[in-house]
Amino acid sequence: MEKRMLFPQVGGFLHGGDYNPEQWLDRPDILEEDIRLMKKAGINSATLGVFSWSVYEPTEGDFHFEWLEEIMDKLYENGIYTILATPSGARPAWLDAAYPEAMRVSSRNVRDHHGGRHNHCMSSPKYREKVTIIDRKLAERFGKHPGLLMWHISNELGGECYCPICAKRFQDYLADKFDHDIQKLNHAWWTTFWSHRYNSFDQIEPPFDHGERSIMGLDLEWKRFTTWSMNDFMKTEIAVLKEVTPQIPVTTNFMELYYELDYRKMAGELDVISWDSYPGFHNDREALEETMLRTAFHHAVMRSMKREKPFMLMESTPSLVNWQPFNKLKRPGVHKLASLQAVASGSDTVQYFQWRKGRGSSEQFHGAVVGHDGTENTRVFREVSEVGTLLKKIAPVAGSLVKAEAALLFDWDNRWAVNDASALSNETKRYDNTCINIWQEFRKLGVEMDVVPSDADLSQYRVVVAPMLYMLQPETADNLKAFVQDGGQLLATYFTGYVDSDQLCYLGGFPGDGLTELFGIVSEEIDTLYPTDRNHIRFEDGTEWEVKDYAEVLQVKDAHVLASYMEDFYQGTAAVTCKEFPTDDKCGRAYYVAARSSADQMRSLFLKMLQDAGLSVKELPPSVDYSTRIGEDGIYDFYMNYGTSPVKVSGVAGTDLITGGSVQGELELETYGVAVIKH
Amino acid sequence: MEKRMLFPQVGGFLHGGDYNPEQWLDRPDILEEDIRLMKKAGINSATLGVFSWSVYEPTEGDFHFEWLEEIMDKLYENGIYTILATPSGARPAWLDAAYPEAMRVSSRNVRDHHGGRHNHCMSSPKYREKVTIIDRKLAERFGKHPGLLMWHISNELGGECYCPICAKRFQDYLADKFDHDIQKLNHAWWTTFWSHRYNSFDQIEPPFDHGERSIMGLDLEWKRFTTWSMNDFMKTEIAVLKEVTPQIPVTTNFMELYYELDYRKMAGELDVISWDSYPGFHNDREALEETMLRTAFHHAVMRSMKREKPFMLMESTPSLVNWQPFNKLKRPGVHKLASLQAVASGSDTVQYFQWRKGRGSSEQFHGAVVGHDGTENTRVFREVSEVGTLLKKIAPVAGSLVKAEAALLFDWDNRWAVNDASALSNETKRYDNTCINIWQEFRKLGVEMDVVPSDADLSQYRVVVAPMLYMLQPETADNLKAFVQDGGQLLATYFTGYVDSDQLCYLGGFPGDGLTELFGIVSEEIDTLYPTDRNHIRFEDGTEWEVKDYAEVLQVKDAHVLASYMEDFYQGTAAVTCKEFPTDDKCGRAYYVAARSSADQMRSLFLKMLQDAGLSVKELPPSVDYSTRIGEDGIYDFYMNYGTSPVKVSGVAGTDLITGGSVQGELELETYGVAVIKH
Amino acid sequence: MEKRMLFPQVGGFLHGGDYNPEQWLDRPDILEEDIRLMKKAGINSATLGVFSWSVYEPTEGDFHFEWLEEIMDKLYENGIYTILATPSGARPAWLDAAYPEAMRVSSRNVRDHHGGRHNHCMSSPKYREKVTIIDRKLAERFGKHPGLLMWHISNELGGECYCPICAKRFQDYLADKFDHDIQKLNHAWWTTFWSHRYNSFDQIEPPFDHGERSIMGLDLEWKRFTTWSMNDFMKTEIAVLKEVTPQIPVTTNFMELYYELDYRKMAGELDVISWDSYPGFHNDREALEETMLRTAFHHAVMRSMKREKPFMLMESTPSLVNWQPFNKLKRPGVHKLASLQAVASGSDTVQYFQWRKGRGSSEQFHGAVVGHDGTENTRVFREVSEVGTLLKKIAPVAGSLVKAEAALLFDWDNRWAVNDASALSNETKRYDNTCINIWQEFRKLGVEMDVVPSDADLSQYRVVVAPMLYMLQPETADNLKAFVQDGGQLLATYFTGYVDSDQLCYLGGFPGDGLTELFGIVSEEIDTLYPTDRNHIRFEDGTEWEVKDYAEVLQVKDAHVLASYMEDFYQGTAAVTCKEFPTDDKCGRAYYVAARSSADQMRSLFLKMLQDAGLSVKELPPSVDYSTRIGEDGIYDFYMNYGTSPVKVSGVAGTDLITGGSVQGELELETYGVAVIKH
Repeated sequence: MEKRMLFPQVGGFLHGGDYNPEQWLDRPDILEEDIRLMKKAGINSATLGVFSWSVYEPTEGDFHFEWLEEIMDKLYENGIYTILATPSGARPAWLDAAYPEAMRVSSRNVRDHHGGRHNHCMSSPKYREKVTIIDRKLAERFGKHPGLLMWHISNELGGECYCPICAKRFQDYLADKFDHDIQKLNHAWWTTFWSHRYNSFDQIEPPFDHGERSIMGLDLEWKRFTTWSMNDFMKTEIAVLKEVTPQIPVTTNFMELYYELDYRKMAGELDVISWDSYPGFHNDREALEETMLRTAFHHAVMRSMKREKPFMLMESTPSLVNWQPFNKLKRPGVHKLASLQAVASGSDTVQYFQWRKGRGSSEQFHGAVVGHDGTENTRVFREVSEVGTLLKKIAPVAGSLVKAEAALLFDWDNRWAVNDASALSNETKRYDNTCINIWQEFRKLGVEMDVVPSDADLSQYRVVVAPMLYMLQPETADNLKAFVQDGGQLLATYFTGYVDSDQLCYLGGFPGDGLTELFGIVSEEIDTLYPTDRNHIRFEDGTEWEVKDYAEVLQVKDAHVLASYMEDFYQGTAAVTCKEFPTDDKCGRAYYVAARSSADQMRSLFLKMLQDAGLSVKELPPSVDYSTRIGEDGIYDFYMNYGTSPVKVSGVAGTDLITGGSVQGELELETYGVAVIKH
Repeated sequence: MEKRMLFPQVGGFLHGGDYNPEQWLDRPDILEEDIRLMKKAGINSATLGVFSWSVYEPTEGDFHFEWLEEIMDKLYENGIYTILATPSGARPAWLDAAYPEAMRVSSRNVRDHHGGRHNHCMSSPKYREKVTIIDRKLAERFGKHPGLLMWHISNELGGECYCPICAKRFQDYLADKFDHDIQKLNHAWWTTFWSHRYNSFDQIEPPFDHGERSIMGLDLEWKRFTTWSMNDFMKTEIAVLKEVTPQIPVTTNFMELYYELDYRKMAGELDVISWDSYPGFHNDREALEETMLRTAFHHAVMRSMKREKPFMLMESTPSLVNWQPFNKLKRPGVHKLASLQAVASGSDTVQYFQWRKGRGSSEQFHGAVVGHDGTENTRVFREVSEVGTLLKKIAPVAGSLVKAEAALLFDWDNRWAVNDASALSNETKRYDNTCINIWQEFRKLGVEMDVVPSDADLSQYRVVVAPMLYMLQPETADNLKAFVQDGGQLLATYFTGYVDSDQLCYLGGFPGDGLTELFGIVSEEIDTLYPTDRNHIRFEDGTEWEVKDYAEVLQVKDAHVLASYMEDFYQGTAAVTCKEFPTDDKCGRAYYVAARSSADQMRSLFLKMLQDAGLSVKELPPSVDYSTRIGEDGIYDFYMNYGTSPVKVSGVAGTDLITGGSVQGELELETYGVAVIKH
Repeated sequence: MEKRMLFPQVGGFLHGGDYNPEQWLDRPDILEEDIRLMKKAGINSATLGVFSWSVYEPTEGDFHFEWLEEIMDKLYENGIYTILATPSGARPAWLDAAYPEAMRVSSRNVRDHHGGRHNHCMSSPKYREKVTIIDRKLAERFGKHPGLLMWHISNELGGECYCPICAKRFQDYLADKFDHDIQKLNHAWWTTFWSHRYNSFDQIEPPFDHGERSIMGLDLEWKRFTTWSMNDFMKTEIAVLKEVTPQIPVTTNFMELYYELDYRKMAGELDVISWDSYPGFHNDREALEETMLRTAFHHAVMRSMKREKPFMLMESTPSLVNWQPFNKLKRPGVHKLASLQAVASGSDTVQYFQWRKGRGSSEQFHGAVVGHDGTENTRVFREVSEVGTLLKKIAPVAGSLVKAEAALLFDWDNRWAVNDASALSNETKRYDNTCINIWQEFRKLGVEMDVVPSDADLSQYRVVVAPMLYMLQPETADNLKAFVQDGGQLLATYFTGYVDSDQLCYLGGFPGDGLTELFGIVSEEIDTLYPTDRNHIRFEDGTEWEVKDYAEVLQVKDAHVLASYMEDFYQGTAAVTCKEFPTDDKCGRAYYVAARSSADQMRSLFLKMLQDAGLSVKELPPSVDYSTRIGEDGIYDFYMNYGTSPVKVSGVAGTDLITGGSVQGELELETYGVAVIKH
């Protein structure tokens, strides 16, 4: 297996973070101290220029890059590489004053005033022009700098704009999509309902809060357009950089499962996936293990976008953030856990927002490696330094990859469609959490699972779970059929296959597009339970699951009934079914779970699927997380203890990269302990 | 007693629903199947054209009715009548593009964008013009169609508009009302308070959210104007239809107790009252019985608007809706219960929204007789068919009427005034529920009660309850006095008679306008309790009621004290009083209940009133609802079991129209069972 | 000690209230009855003209004051003085119609429509011009009236405006403040963060909701500007009045701790402090004692603004209000308690909103001395009359003062800065309550405490408590150091000294500006706990305090550790410290409490401070409130029983001004009883 190191010149993991020296240009003593402290903490990279536009170009056309050059030089001299951001994340005051079109218009059709950040009209020609100019200048000036590792496009791209320019582009986007035939759109959006037929594309407006809010097709296409428009903007930035510096990789920092942008549509434009991770550690809703495993899911989403190379943890906080409802301190050791979990999940970097706390403005209390005291004599600094040391110890892991034979289908289109559907209960739909909880349950079994779109190629997997797959893309049903016919183990649930990719309901019975044949059932009705309602389902072996929120009433056509409802008017009818597709040497199975039960109750069914698929599971103590990266020269098993007492893991063998010692049989993990076992 | 059948040509009950064939014009197979399925389900009417404007008139002035004619013909050939809607409920896109004035302006003074439905400026000359043109064309084309039963004006009229045209009409409305004398308005609105005197009517604006929100008189007249304006619009539609087709009755579908329109002001323009009923069955707040009895109250409100003829259940769902917080399925049998309850309450129709589910847009998951599967093989289809069969069995009931000798006063003006009053607590005013709960308690005693406005003629009643009658209309106090002096049993409560119809407080003691004499008490203070506060009141016989929310401190002038407070600083003072008005042969009584207790605690007092009035009560098992329709050839008693186990009702005699059998003495009702006993 | 009677001509306390005869000019019988009832109730003052503009000047330039003259004459003839308001609190309709600029623009950049009150653009030249004209006319006409006691400027000044005129004045204000050097502002606001540098002052906009919301410096200066602008407006009104009637004192009625205006900046312009007090008596959150002690804090804030003279209770309700969530009646005796508490706290007046209830509009149900019944036969009238009698009995107290040797630092700037800080948790910051609870605890110990700004002169105090003093004014740290070095007992808490008066973080360790030396500690981290989290701290003597919400982790440099944390990762580290500054004859002490505990748990520490400072504490029964006014001819101790049973207080000696009897040793107080003991 080939080694895919992201930055060969670094020779291991990146350890760094956002650095804002432009805030301290009048304090050369502090800039000097930064270098000393970075080296002490084992920092080898700095992300510069994320919000430097007003320093680069204090008035229109007047550029100042000399300060940056000095900083990059000094960093490089001290072994610290630079990730250089394009400064498009925040516009200077002069730009908005001169070109108000750059300011976004809200869904209330009111243009924003100047302020904030990340709030540009992505369609604005003037904004794009000014971004292109400064990007080109940066590329020309710093593209050959030996310290330059990578371009960081803008920052946490997001949001949407309802201005006339965007509205016009939306109309053009729709005309393209529907072949310039308004009747195609009318049919797809079912506009005869409520007399909503359009006569022409230029009658269509964005879904203003005080405008059209009743057409699901409009809502969905607006979201797709927003992704398209953001991607289009990002491509203009990338185009300039690639023209001048084709050798420098580009990324942009994603934000977890950010709802408004289908990141997978953007991933193709990027050389590397990177993201910013800010879990709410030690909250009052869940144990630390749950927080960590949700983050593991997020890592898996990112990792699965480019399975052929590592990703980057572009931002994380070394201590706390300042914008959560309760800004609690990360407990000692948790910083190490979170950093190593990213690595275990396939990241080749551990990076922070931010290196040093600013004195003022809205993130002055966001955690940083160096605080307002300015010293190394803090718990936070010591913990960051420890991570620096650890990353060096496990440097051989860099470039290795995570490999999965199971997959969970999780879709932005489906998220949007499920949430916008006028059905069920908006309080309990919980598509994301339903997916996450199932993924976590597989993870607790030691099974690595990719998280892929519903129209993904499934040929490399042996187990596939598709929770609440309400919307089917054109290829999805065929893919699922082929997967099962080829011996795959598939599980779908209630609320599957109700609508096509335009959100038109399938006729002839759900799940549509041929899936009633695949699963051998028809879903006649779906019952939405109140939060206090409960039902139960019982399996032949006496196992019972508790049901809440949703329960479909099935007509069984051609499937085995594995479990039935125990209560209510559908008592005794099928709740879990399986249809088998045996061939000579294997047997594909299509499971349908018609009601919502918790993922931990579903574990026995998952085990059956894994067993039938020939995938191995692992016996792990409750608080231990296990994952694996595979390199060209070895396999690296990560064991992390999220619990508050030491544990022992049996069946471990290999060399612990952290202690350097050999492990044979039993591995002992301290509270919040980590081991990286090479074998 | 004369038989008042709404549609003699049908010869019984209407069973039908909204039908949208224009969504399926490209699917003649489906349209064909619709006819077959309707006949199978016992459907004899279809409501057409509710949202067909953009199909009738795809571009301005280009009309297409041929498809409708074909459908109506086909339906009629198959024994299915048509209720034809005017299409004004939703405007085509071209109309808003050409005439933006048709789009409503919100209370934030922002004009809506095109979209949604039911959101027209009712004052817009252009909208009215276009509606008039198409209504006339429909009337001319279909007015003589033998299948045409009725006109359905627009759909669920509602909402309000703050545009300049509406604002000007509001000023004109006020000038008319106050005799073009601004000082009359200043006095009525007490504008000297806070220096709010107006100099002229054209200074008065609608109560914008960011405008005048502190004048109760303005708020109230704005609500009255909104009803006036809606009615004025509705009358323009009716005028065209009556001109062309004077023989066809008109209705519009009301929405329960819709707060924003005083339906009684509109009822006079209609030939028949109809409404759309969507109770939240099987919720987590109450037992089914409570849900059903609240719906019974709503039926009574509708029925009481035209007591001389049956009303229509224009819409109900055959299964579930898609817009409640939790869209739960109606349990088996409940559809039958709800349908027969409407009939028991005086409806001569059972109609659905909708016949067939659309494939897309916002109501694609609203319940329908035929689902996306398109078959008759569903629970829902079977239950609808059962109702079709039942309606035929009880056909003799059609045209009979409900008669009541008790009445509850319930007023839109009073709802608005109570809610807008800066007094008490907005969290606990609950005027509607207070009325409903008292009405329900009488219903549980088997007593039919009309629900009438506070200025109604009371001469036909023997018991009248007037809860929280804060605002007195000019005639109300005189009516109440005459009622009691004529031997009537009257009960009023705390918060009665504080203001006149302009919301000016009565001087000289509450309840005003002479009611202190009628009740023999003065209310000195009203105490608003916190939700956790409780008091108690005790009657001479030891009965105790728990008090919450409100307690008035009374000065007793000339009344018997029936009960006194047990706690707090008003301990020992009067809480329930009665003043008697004896004449030779009867004795009127005016009860005053100074504090809030639950309706079930007040039952003993209600029984006393009924007994003194000579009205009979019925001993009913807890879950059984009883009501009666009186026809020219018999009396029809309806018994419905809302409980989850079978019950027996004693003292029943007659013929069961459903079973055809005779009942003598004891009637057995299954779970959710219904019996219609003719005697 | 000099006697500072506010109104020597009255010769004792004022007892009066808002009076609106202009609402009843068509009812001379009612105006006549008012005089009779006022005299019966012991009323000696009336506040006139608060909202009379549209009666004074019904159309622009047409003035009518004759009715007022008649009323003032009649009142004066009957021994009732007048406090005359300027009518600027509400604008006539004609003014807004002619000069729309007078209507405020909201933070959404939308101009209000005409309506309401207290909602003027304070910068509007036309509004100011019209106010000046009418103020001058009033002053000229009534300035020499023998009944005129005082000018009441406008009413409950408040709110803010985002109109272009205000925006421009804000820019000018900023330019003045930052020496017309935009780089000074850029540094102070740390605008290099997020590329927010301004090029010029005219680029700066108010913090629109849809504009710049991310610069703490902008937020803070906007609040400071709003106070500045309001004060500037108030000064224009005062200037006219002082020019014409220099002999008449002026006040304006403050509203408790009204968040939006730094009242201390306005106090300097006024001759007397007055305020409107509307506690939520008998609520469901707390015992009456807590409500009363919170009000005592509010009185202390007002009193401390002008310690050299009494203040005024300008408004209070004689019964209930009509705008609280639950408008509960004041229980019998509580009106007396609240009135006498104001006097005990240093007020020389007891005044009401309002004398008589209006018939209509938004405050028609607000409590008044005379209700809609119009009689004296009410509980409320009798209780008001009783207060009238009491005030005459304790008349010698008038003009005496409250003196304190302890102080609590409480700052508007700090309130704004704490709440705007992106740190901790917005749900639990609770700066106000933290201050109030500590103040209450001292009050329960019988210790009078001034409430002063953080930059106050502390030389007259011996104990100072500074809770959560996040922002240090330029003088604060020096003042605190001097205070301790001079032997003072000082206590500070977590979240002290993080930022300077521009909200820039101090570098080098918190608390900044030299306070790390004063307290001998550095705060390394602050932990924000979830509401369910708890910690504990233990003192050497075994005392334990429960910790919630916040806990700082300290580095102890040079202080005694009095208590340490018992749990979590900072277990065993310092939680309460003390650094001593002994001199020959005294020992100053600087206490630092690093975590939040309830004030009652902190009592032992407060007692230690008081003891070391030589301040006496008083043993009081739980429900008894004690305070003292000191006059030139005696000391007046007030004892009030907020409990629901009688209590005895020991150690009391003197003459009871209410009973006229002598008390030696034990004082007995009835439920809600009051005693005023002169000695």
